Amino acid sequence: MKIAVLGHGTVGSGVAEILLDKKSSVSSSAGKEIELGAVLDIKKFDNLSYSDKFVSDFSKILDDPEIEIIAEAMGGIEPAFTYAKSALERGKNFVTSNKELVAEKGAKLLSIARAHNVNFLFEASVGGGIPLIRTLYSSLNAAGISEIAGILNGTTNYILTKMFRFGTDYESALSDAQNLGYAERDPSADVLGWDACRKISILSSLVWGKTLRPDEIPTEGIVNITSDDVSLAESCGFSIKLLARAKQLSDGKIFAKVSPALVKNDSPLSTVNDVFNAVLVRADTTGDVLLYGKGAGKLPTASAVVSDIIECAKTENNIKNLFWEDGAQSSASERDSVSERYFIRTSFDASSIIKDTETIGTNAYITSPITESELSVLKEKISEHGSLLSNIPLFE
Amino acid sequence: MKIAVLGHGTVGSGVAEILLDKKSSVSSSAGKEIELGAVLDIKKFDNLSYSDKFVSDFSKILDDPEIEIIAEAMGGIEPAFTYAKSALERGKNFVTSNKELVAEKGAKLLSIARAHNVNFLFEASVGGGIPLIRTLYSSLNAAGISEIAGILNGTTNYILTKMFRFGTDYESALSDAQNLGYAERDPSADVLGWDACRKISILSSLVWGKTLRPDEIPTEGIVNITSDDVSLAESCGFSIKLLARAKQLSDGKIFAKVSPALVKNDSPLSTVNDVFNAVLVRADTTGDVLLYGKGAGKLPTASAVVSDIIECAKTENNIKNLFWEDGAQSSASERDSVSERYFIRTSFDASSIIKDTETIGTNAYITSPITESELSVLKEKISEHGSLLSNIPLFE
Repeated sequence: MKIAVLGHGTVGSGVAEILLDKKSSVSSSAGKEIELGAVLDIKKFDNLSYSDKFVSDFSKILDDPEIEIIAEAMGGIEPAFTYAKSALERGKNFVTSNKELVAEKGAKLLSIARAHNVNFLFEASVGGGIPLIRTLYSSLNAAGISEIAGILNGTTNYILTKMFRFGTDYESALSDAQNLGYAERDPSADVLGWDACRKISILSSLVWGKTLRPDEIPTEGIVNITSDDVSLAESCGFSIKLLARAKQLSDGKIFAKVSPALVKNDSPLSTVNDVFNAVLVRADTTGDVLLYGKGAGKLPTASAVVSDIIECAKTENNIKNLFWEDGAQSSASERDSVSERYFIRTSFDASSIIKDTETIGTNAYITSPITESELSVLKEKISEHGSLLSNIPLFE
Repeated sequence: MKIAVLGHGTVGSGVAEILLDKKSSVSSSAGKEIELGAVLDIKKFDNLSYSDKFVSDFSKILDDPEIEIIAEAMGGIEPAFTYAKSALERGKNFVTSNKELVAEKGAKLLSIARAHNVNFLFEASVGGGIPLIRTLYSSLNAAGISEIAGILNGTTNYILTKMFRFGTDYESALSDAQNLGYAERDPSADVLGWDACRKISILSSLVWGKTLRPDEIPTEGIVNITSDDVSLAESCGFSIKLLARAKQLSDGKIFAKVSPALVKNDSPLSTVNDVFNAVLVRADTTGDVLLYGKGAGKLPTASAVVSDIIECAKTENNIKNLFWEDGAQSSASERDSVSERYFIRTSFDASSIIKDTETIGTNAYITSPITESELSVLKEKISEHGSLLSNIPLFE
């Protein structure tokens, strides 16, 4: 069975290497011989043992009847979407590490895959080397999942860990992450929460079977978190994490949010540090389950792509439990359908303004559960007397 | 598709309840209607909505052609083994939560299942509600797993957590666990490590494909751990956990061991507290992956059994990657094939006896890596001058 790899960057080259270096264990897991058939890249790579496999024209791959599985690691919506669509329509399996593609076009591609009785798989799109997607659709699918909460971005988790451990401020923690190669020169997608937003969009769509688009998820990054927030939270037994959350409400709608959150020290999420990722899955039968591991990196991510290649090779038909649809109506919950407690920090003594509150430090409070509208009212009142320095929800 | 449940105790009744209460979601995950067909128990249960399903004679189930999956939750080797064997030979799928059965008879039953193209599944036998077994054989099977280390027994983890948090001694932590129903009146199987031993035997056999019998695994419980050990470990940045470990050495043999171990505070295993279980899986491509959740309890365990029922219903053929064999030779490594560091506590100043050591407190040391034979020699030397109070390996 021949495999084509699209894109020879970090992940794509990792996939090619695993397919070559671990050919016998991959083939034995798949139950048939798995062979690297072609690599698509516009660049030339001359000194590789598989330099002869490179092609620059996708139609060579599409038209090769021996290639039954295509692994995409190029990133971006186009041309990835066009390639995926045409491959699935030709009856080829398509696997990807591309979270943008899955978050934006997942429902469409899953439906084309189903129509042609092949598979569209994306284990590597969320959580890198953590076996997450398959666990959700094949082990926990009947457990009655009510909520998922994840630390899904390693860069921001590294920055927050640094701030927590060493009292570093945000800017120097970020520049440290950049120097170590954990953050890009333009870190926006990470620090503004967009990366985590795409990933929770995928998880929510998968778990509850209806598309929840990234643009429907309120998203806030970590750029406003100060070392004062971190040390105050710490003194009350919390750490601050960038959490991507989704929860099914009693009307079936999904409350989802990406934001910094206070996590209690006895929660398993609080001890997920550095570039590690973790996802907490709450289900009424199994209780809390946590999956933890390396959320990024060449080999962990490439290894997840290869596990999808093996799954395609083993599974001769379309996997029924891996599916979601574009609903006519949005699956996102209405504003104010959920109340949460908030950590509030002000520039002045606000204890007379914030009712039913717990004072946890100088000008620092934890509110009773309030809706977003109630939070807005509170913010306005505070701004009449001074400044609101922070407002961060508690994860409970 | 009809299911029979063998044994109507805690887990068996949970399985029956999930099959009835969540019939539609279970059936939709399985892709066909799943129905409770029969419950085998010698006792009568009169006031249940499914009292009419009870039978007391296994042959009624065996001879019923409509029953295609049998879920066993009786425990013990017999009659479970005889029932499993005859069911598989008749072409029925068999799923179980019975760790003794899997640890002792797994290779035989897997081979009978393969010969009859049906499945023998046991997700619930290790780690309760944690999706562990399926993740190992279907997601991480090609990742190149080199080592597994688990906190696999909730009772002992509860006791050690109590000792760590409150400085309680072992006896009162145990009696507390008994009062809460976390420990049995006769706690031997838990506190002596036998339960964890059976579970690591199953995981090792599964991951490396060859039976590792429980009696081949050196097993030590927590009965000798004192509050002094716990507080000394704590002061050096460690916690003490009952770890069940297995590691493949370069000659292919398996080094396995169940014992208390010092775990560094920055390891994700150190924050697994109370009755929770977790398994750390080390693989060269994915890095460390941790799976965490409730290792016991009616609904988490029953939910794992039901996930196996769904897997049997979805999978029409024998699952090839779930298999191990009884080798002619033992898969256990030779004594002294591994060196470990040990935490040593003595009744006197032993710094002149323990070479290359780190003194971490009064009469407390951490050795350099030594083999078991070297540890024996050291113990003997120590006993010439006073008493050895503790020797606990470090997990690194």
